[in-house]
Amino acid sequence: MHAYRSHSCADLTAQNVGEKVRLSGWVHRVRDHGGVLFIDLRDHYGMTQLLCDPDSAVFAQVEKARAEWCIRIDGEVKARDASLVNAKIPTGAIEVYIRDIEVLGASAELPLQVFGDQEYPEETRLRYRYLDLRREKMQANMALRSDVVASIRRRMWDKKFREFQTPIITASSPEGARDFLVPSRLHPGKFYALPQAPQQFKQLLMVSGFDKYFQIAPCFRDEDPRADRSPTDFYQLDLEMSFVEQQDVFDTIQPVLTGIFEEFGGGKAVDQDWPQISYKDAALWYGSDKPDLRNPIKMQAVSEHFAGSGFAIFAKLLEQEGTEIRAIPAPKGGSRKFCDRMNAFAQKEGLPGMGYIFWRDQGNGMEAAGPLAKNIGPERTEAIRLQLGLDVGDAAFFLGGKPKTFEAVAGKARNVIGAELGLTDENRFAFAWIVDFPIYEKDAESGRIDFEHNPFSMPQGGMAALEGDPLEVLGYQYDLACNGYELVSGAIRNHKPEIMFKAFEIAGYGEDEVRKRFGGMVNAFQYGAPPHGGCAAGIDRIVMLLAEESNIREVILFPMNQRAEDLMMAAPSEPTSDQLMDLGLRVIPQE
Amino acid sequence: MHAYRSHSCADLTAQNVGEKVRLSGWVHRVRDHGGVLFIDLRDHYGMTQLLCDPDSAVFAQVEKARAEWCIRIDGEVKARDASLVNAKIPTGAIEVYIRDIEVLGASAELPLQVFGDQEYPEETRLRYRYLDLRREKMQANMALRSDVVASIRRRMWDKKFREFQTPIITASSPEGARDFLVPSRLHPGKFYALPQAPQQFKQLLMVSGFDKYFQIAPCFRDEDPRADRSPTDFYQLDLEMSFVEQQDVFDTIQPVLTGIFEEFGGGKAVDQDWPQISYKDAALWYGSDKPDLRNPIKMQAVSEHFAGSGFAIFAKLLEQEGTEIRAIPAPKGGSRKFCDRMNAFAQKEGLPGMGYIFWRDQGNGMEAAGPLAKNIGPERTEAIRLQLGLDVGDAAFFLGGKPKTFEAVAGKARNVIGAELGLTDENRFAFAWIVDFPIYEKDAESGRIDFEHNPFSMPQGGMAALEGDPLEVLGYQYDLACNGYELVSGAIRNHKPEIMFKAFEIAGYGEDEVRKRFGGMVNAFQYGAPPHGGCAAGIDRIVMLLAEESNIREVILFPMNQRAEDLMMAAPSEPTSDQLMDLGLRVIPQE
Repeated sequence: MHAYRSHSCADLTAQNVGEKVRLSGWVHRVRDHGGVLFIDLRDHYGMTQLLCDPDSAVFAQVEKARAEWCIRIDGEVKARDASLVNAKIPTGAIEVYIRDIEVLGASAELPLQVFGDQEYPEETRLRYRYLDLRREKMQANMALRSDVVASIRRRMWDKKFREFQTPIITASSPEGARDFLVPSRLHPGKFYALPQAPQQFKQLLMVSGFDKYFQIAPCFRDEDPRADRSPTDFYQLDLEMSFVEQQDVFDTIQPVLTGIFEEFGGGKAVDQDWPQISYKDAALWYGSDKPDLRNPIKMQAVSEHFAGSGFAIFAKLLEQEGTEIRAIPAPKGGSRKFCDRMNAFAQKEGLPGMGYIFWRDQGNGMEAAGPLAKNIGPERTEAIRLQLGLDVGDAAFFLGGKPKTFEAVAGKARNVIGAELGLTDENRFAFAWIVDFPIYEKDAESGRIDFEHNPFSMPQGGMAALEGDPLEVLGYQYDLACNGYELVSGAIRNHKPEIMFKAFEIAGYGEDEVRKRFGGMVNAFQYGAPPHGGCAAGIDRIVMLLAEESNIREVILFPMNQRAEDLMMAAPSEPTSDQLMDLGLRVIPQE
Repeated sequence: MHAYRSHSCADLTAQNVGEKVRLSGWVHRVRDHGGVLFIDLRDHYGMTQLLCDPDSAVFAQVEKARAEWCIRIDGEVKARDASLVNAKIPTGAIEVYIRDIEVLGASAELPLQVFGDQEYPEETRLRYRYLDLRREKMQANMALRSDVVASIRRRMWDKKFREFQTPIITASSPEGARDFLVPSRLHPGKFYALPQAPQQFKQLLMVSGFDKYFQIAPCFRDEDPRADRSPTDFYQLDLEMSFVEQQDVFDTIQPVLTGIFEEFGGGKAVDQDWPQISYKDAALWYGSDKPDLRNPIKMQAVSEHFAGSGFAIFAKLLEQEGTEIRAIPAPKGGSRKFCDRMNAFAQKEGLPGMGYIFWRDQGNGMEAAGPLAKNIGPERTEAIRLQLGLDVGDAAFFLGGKPKTFEAVAGKARNVIGAELGLTDENRFAFAWIVDFPIYEKDAESGRIDFEHNPFSMPQGGMAALEGDPLEVLGYQYDLACNGYELVSGAIRNHKPEIMFKAFEIAGYGEDEVRKRFGGMVNAFQYGAPPHGGCAAGIDRIVMLLAEESNIREVILFPMNQRAEDLMMAAPSEPTSDQLMDLGLRVIPQE
């Protein structure tokens, strides 16, 4: 017999009754029923009930076993009484009578219980991560993550993509976030950097003649920690293709992601129709470039109904350039209580409030209620109702000003309204491509033109477009929104050196600066660069959505804490003076 | 029609004759045959012959195209004359008449030709890696690497292993080589380290209750560069299993590797029988712990035949303790010319020489030739011949002294003899497990006892064994040799804290030191650690063997040069003073 096990803890069924078996695993729980010891033995695969009565030759040894001891037992499989069968687990029809026991690894007193649902501070969980990871939900989350990544790989291979590993110790590649630096020992005073993303390398791969690349790529950004962000590294499905247009990239990634969400989404509906919404429309309709389309509410511009109306605040506002009034329709939201709560929400978010109208029928037919309706009068109120397609029992909220000043709050209000009114379908994954991002934005204070998103995208209209108003230039650049999160981001790249230099010039970067920052890639583009494009999808985010977790640390094996420390491994730590000497570095004493 | 291509450059056959097609790719070669231009258009998938005659409306544009320009063409597929069909390529039956052309990316003058076999200095190849990678052999090597890794993953999944990503920014884990350090911005003066291997994390995964782990894992070692070693990072197939013994690990990895070598080995024979050879026997028989078993030569100890013999050098040598005489049999090596050449080889390697005997028949029956045979006389000579199983036409070489002083040269001589005599079967992959490594070794100068290999292995015999002579203790520790290279290394781990502390104590490390260096793992072992073991296989090495390359940079996309520089991306480079400030570091000016 094998030294440790003849079966896993999930294997034994009524078929095995009478067999002599060997099992290894952890003592999940010990119960003493009138002198008879019941042990739930747990391994990665499942749980098996063991029992030992006081007549047993090894009773004294079994009695010593405590929770989370790792043991090996030999025993006989017996059928449980019909009344004691547990149909919920595969081994629920049997139990194993212990005939021999060996302690493989005893346990000190536990700082954290594996059994049960007790909550522990995150610091405790991370310090004793090896115990935390033994818990059922964590085992499931990590298995899910691994299975999702495996399935992504299979799907990409099926599409004739090859996975290539790009360098991890490389050059600084300024992409907005801070680089992690790695001092060089062979070149003291010089530093490598860990890649923020394999952006330049994947583009270089296209210039190298590889046609379809992907990678489950580790990315490194030295960012200040947040619940939904790892403070050090994260993984993305990174892909790039040559000789493609935007739609080709969409057609490639959509079946991969729908496949993943269908396979691992626990039966939730997965939208097959992915609308393409312009960045501009997304802002208007949803107040967000990552709208949650499970929520059917679509905002509308209603400025015309307020221009010159009796509602002086909006009427005056509209006299200023660039202002607009937008409505958030709220079907079934037609009560004063609800409307007041939403108004309070807007105030909490820093706005003066949200005006509203709601429609009711108190026995005299439809009536528009709320101060706003009174101010603008029945005709305008009715025009608004008709435009928004609302009826008795519904409401609408209004926000006004320069869109940038209230769009984000409008988007949040839309989410809250959708959730509170039960309009948002929680059992669904809803996707939308956000397209036509502007290439540039103007800094409100300095008036400087800078890249809005990513300097590597091809401007729609190419060189000619760059010769007009930069703020009008749209890029072949896209994000995928899913349930309110940005899941994918990508672009058709600017592969023509002359267009790239021009694009950077508009943002105030000279040719020298571009060559200094992106020299590897820019040089390569001089030698027959193909048109290419791609995208990157956040693995951690996908797994969080599938596991229904809101903290990224629930889907990472050994994450850093929020101060970017690994308490279990004691990182970061002080280097030895020899190490510093080797690297030619001195630590500046901190105040 | 698609903006860039209706077909790839490998797609068109006689079936497509008459079709209008669109192709994109690189101008591989342009030939002018009496005014008609022939272009070999190349993409990732293959090559298609284009042609354009002077009557064409786009002739003037086509004429401008130079090697490595990226172009898109429209054209008609025509059948080649039967006499011009090229059966070697899939598109060899057709050619495409160019009707339209678009330059997608022109090229500056090429520093390196993609077409042909011209050799370039490595620095040029690495600086223009995107051109170098377009070459046929490099495209094939990178595709091979990607396919090998994909196949390994499939095979591991089939064996119910899950892949888990372990942290890349983590704590220093002293394993013999130097760590790459990463300064922390949030904790100035403290440093993370990049993992030399996921050793501690994979063991922590086992303590966390995951049963079968693998990872295609990046490993980082700040080592001085060598041709067969990347100066920064390399990849390994890292795996670990709980509740296993050594043989279980062997039974797991063997089918994975034989499968890979069969799938990608180009038809070479792949040994199915993998002998297990003790470290001691490997030294005796092959003079190496990574023997090349394609070579049938097995050395033998022949001390008894020289003790007290007339060959004074060996006879005297054997009077000293710990000395031995070993023979390298050389079937078919029985000529004075060959024997003298091998003797010269040994001298070049720093030994006084290699004595030899060879057996010939000059018409008077078998005769033993060479000075050694004369010195020891016919009886001893014949006894040696019988022991080694040699005959007329064969030879044997002899080396003596303390084995450590000559084993390495003996091993090299065995390789040279096998190769020169044509005994080594080049069309074969031959594997052997080297087992029973000693846990400790004694430093010849200081007399200190230190770990021979890896401090994490379980000593055979457990705690009891550690109480005897440390130099006698063997570990459950193993390497896999393939064709003279170490392909895999692994162990059953020491998962018991008390045995681990004892093992370190013998090597002179106190409990405090062990906790400091391996605290994460040692703490974890206190909470019910399971028995576990595993191994790691070098991906770069496997691909090198399959691609028949001897330089690791031929199987890595964007490698560093031998000075650990990336000339293409300009890494490492000088940090900005802001970056240094953020990290709380100062660079010490170099002399």
